[in-house]
Amino acid sequence: MLIRPADPNTTTPVEMEDVSMQVMVGREDNAPHFSLRHFVVQPGGHTPRHQHNYEHENYIIEGTGTIECDGEIENIQAGDTFYIPANKIHQFRNNSDQPLRFLCLVPTTFDGDQATPGS
Amino acid sequence: MLIRPADPNTTTPVEMEDVSMQVMVGREDNAPHFSLRHFVVQPGGHTPRHQHNYEHENYIIEGTGTIECDGEIENIQAGDTFYIPANKIHQFRNNSDQPLRFLCLVPTTFDGDQATPGS
Repeated sequence: MLIRPADPNTTTPVEMEDVSMQVMVGREDNAPHFSLRHFVVQPGGHTPRHQHNYEHENYIIEGTGTIECDGEIENIQAGDTFYIPANKIHQFRNNSDQPLRFLCLVPTTFDGDQATPGS
Repeated sequence: MLIRPADPNTTTPVEMEDVSMQVMVGREDNAPHFSLRHFVVQPGGHTPRHQHNYEHENYIIEGTGTIECDGEIENIQAGDTFYIPANKIHQFRNNSDQPLRFLCLVPTTFDGDQATPGS
């Protein structure tokens, strides 16, 4: 049975400032439809302000910060859940002095059979 | 922007003993591929021991208990993440004296165009 602990110490850096990621369940585990990733954003860090042709579903595990999506900016905290539709510009920012940890779910493929990056 | 707090007080009972659920992001929100649900299992409670033709991806938010999947039983705690493949018999049990809270992700459809129950 696949059981993995979300562990901030085993995340690996990604191409973002002060951001690291751990794939909890993904394509390498033969997940057929969607992939569950664990992100850590260090104090003062942020994810890229970008958009892509697939959606996110997110759950805040720990910490506070802001989410920008499609021109709106909202404060976020543990327990908050978001839906970020495909093609909407979005960015997570950690403006606190503690790590911001969240889950980010993506489909394993998009545009038919394209493998979703980081899934 | 859709932001929903995971709130144990706003979950609604489901047809399981001592179990309630909150759909955080689902088909009614036009989620195209997968649905994110928040479950609360009260002390002594359990989900049905069942199987179905779609997978689960799970993340334990709070509490402890056990997960049975395909004949294996493992202890679980906050931060643990599981992949439960389609058609494997599975059951969550809360054998502690505190609520067990977890996320349970499912595809929005299975077997082609069948709507996944509770998605």
